[in-house]
Amino acid sequence: MKKYDISIIKGDGIGPEIVDEAIKVLDAVSYSCGFSLEYKEYLMGGIAIDETGTPLPQETIDGVLNSDACLFGAIGGEKWDTLPRDLRPETGLLKFREAMEVYANLRPAIIYDELVNASTLKPEVIEGVDIMIVRELIGGIYFGKPRENDGFKAFNTMVYTKPEIERIGKTAFELAMKRDKRVCSVDKANVLEVSQLWRDTMEEIAKDYPEVELSHMYVDNAAMQLVRNPKQFDVIVTGNIFGDILSDTASMVVGSIGLLPSASTGDKTAIYEPIHGSAPDIAGQGIANPIATIESAGMMLRYSLGEMEAADKIDAAIKKALKDGYRTKDLAAYDAKEVVTTSEMGDIIANNI
Amino acid sequence: MKKYDISIIKGDGIGPEIVDEAIKVLDAVSYSCGFSLEYKEYLMGGIAIDETGTPLPQETIDGVLNSDACLFGAIGGEKWDTLPRDLRPETGLLKFREAMEVYANLRPAIIYDELVNASTLKPEVIEGVDIMIVRELIGGIYFGKPRENDGFKAFNTMVYTKPEIERIGKTAFELAMKRDKRVCSVDKANVLEVSQLWRDTMEEIAKDYPEVELSHMYVDNAAMQLVRNPKQFDVIVTGNIFGDILSDTASMVVGSIGLLPSASTGDKTAIYEPIHGSAPDIAGQGIANPIATIESAGMMLRYSLGEMEAADKIDAAIKKALKDGYRTKDLAAYDAKEVVTTSEMGDIIANNI
Ligand SMILES: CC(C)[C@H](C(=O)O)[C@@H](O)C(=O)O
Ligand SMILES: CC(C)[C@H](C(=O)O)[C@@H](O)C(=O)O
Repeated sequence: MKKYDISIIKGDGIGPEIVDEAIKVLDAVSYSCGFSLEYKEYLMGGIAIDETGTPLPQETIDGVLNSDACLFGAIGGEKWDTLPRDLRPETGLLKFREAMEVYANLRPAIIYDELVNASTLKPEVIEGVDIMIVRELIGGIYFGKPRENDGFKAFNTMVYTKPEIERIGKTAFELAMKRDKRVCSVDKANVLEVSQLWRDTMEEIAKDYPEVELSHMYVDNAAMQLVRNPKQFDVIVTGNIFGDILSDTASMVVGSIGLLPSASTGDKTAIYEPIHGSAPDIAGQGIANPIATIESAGMMLRYSLGEMEAADKIDAAIKKALKDGYRTKDLAAYDAKEVVTTSEMGDIIANNI
Repeated sequence: MKKYDISIIKGDGIGPEIVDEAIKVLDAVSYSCGFSLEYKEYLMGGIAIDETGTPLPQETIDGVLNSDACLFGAIGGEKWDTLPRDLRPETGLLKFREAMEVYANLRPAIIYDELVNASTLKPEVIEGVDIMIVRELIGGIYFGKPRENDGFKAFNTMVYTKPEIERIGKTAFELAMKRDKRVCSVDKANVLEVSQLWRDTMEEIAKDYPEVELSHMYVDNAAMQLVRNPKQFDVIVTGNIFGDILSDTASMVVGSIGLLPSASTGDKTAIYEPIHGSAPDIAGQGIANPIATIESAGMMLRYSLGEMEAADKIDAAIKKALKDGYRTKDLAAYDAKEVVTTSEMGDIIANNI
């Protein structure tokens, strides 16, 4: 029987509850598909600060690097927001992404027919939306140097090199080949030199993918178009900060941030996590929506372990749960037949497998 | 009789048509309110490149500086997109903003009851939205140095100094005092040093405005909240690039980019312009919507000339035209009784005065 080593980072806030449900579903699906998953837990974020004094212990880096894939909950909380910048949960997260060299952050935005009313956008605008946002994750202004704040003047550097743009561009074009073969590259080339290099490099990559149609859009227009007509997009590829903003916009197009998974991949271990945060305000109440994390586990099976059948089963199990009218509290207003707890939702999806 | 000198920049694409309608309305309202406006035209953008070889002739800078206010159409077009960066229309626009020192870009996003259906968002989400976005316009990554693209590596610098943040912060708080007394400052302080200085400085300014409630939001969350629940916002204050993205998002919340005016103000001559672009594809067909430009003229009367009554009259005249069911082609689908041309819309609004 095939065996995979999965590193688990539960993190803070609702992190532990939602990861537990994803594990429940992973156990069900691995049993049903005949492979086995071995989990090892590591600390990161606020809980790591509290227990070890640093948001990202070396043990976590080593452990995750030695695993086949990493399932991640969420980190952060007000409690740690006043710590020096170096010790904050977010700093740990950024260092973690850097250490794992996960340069490509894939954020699919897909509408569930059952939840088309959960969006603030009109149903006819969003029905059938299926966007893959490919965000560069370990470059750009997040990591650029020099960076400084002397209390009078502060600055950051938005920087990209051609190889950095090439590898994320290739990821986007490869994904497009398996989808509708359209890549929209988002930048601000009418103002920024760094965007001009981005755009020129995308044009060069496009030559290797004659079947894929490449278009360019300024970031302000892209934000607008996501709200005006999200169906026009297939794959969107963009830099770190623009991707941060646009993928959150896209999540609202879909309607619930509780439904959106992500994969952060590179040449080493990939990380799978919901795009929502740690929501400390609702932690421990059993009302968090575990679906985004369960979907992330599905992405892990698909992209890191190549267990396609198992991944499909998870997708189908989630769809069935929604179709049968089960909703966590956040989605109670949308055709709920029964409002269930975090762990009940995990049970229902696991049972559907 | 009071007399004001108004500099006019019509620009490219639909610029000339929409500015002509705004002048029509300005003439009507100045006549009715007993003051006079003297217009002088200057070149900028593509037309300036074609006629003078540079997107921003010195004569334009001098002329506008010597006027009481500037009414601006729109610039740019594919024709000039392949010119060297230094000669492009956008470069002229950025230099113009810099020369005028218009550090504060005010972009109101207000819903017209008659057009509540024009948004892709559900009516109940947007009814009553009234947001004022205050975007810093002559700093941040748009102007930061060093900036370079050597074909292998490219970078830009996002930089702010405390005085720059203070003056835009004060603008926002002063505006909030005349509105609902709430300022939401948008940044990415969990990642960027420049945002940390922004946030700290906003906190300091807030001490001078005890009546105003200051909150902070990360830019990714702000983009999301604009789509999820736009009614929560009163005044939003943010840096140049974040403001560029968020104000375009907000325009889609309102529903039509053809309805949104803007004011760019500093300590010298202020510039009033629609937030939409030059739309070369529809230029000269008489179908452009002149309302955003007419509203911009209204803002000019209010903010630069202190002609409040005249400004109110313009607002009322636009509202009446919409209520009476007149629509330009872009809004033909939304309760139109009669679809009218650009110049007919100008006539109707002028006649309402
Ligand atoms: C927490 C924060 C540093 C992070 C980011 O900006 O990348 C988050 O918003 C995300 O998108 O994963
Ligand atoms: C044309 C472009 C340089 C400009 C900007 O980014 O400022 C435009 O998008 C705007 O918002 O006025």
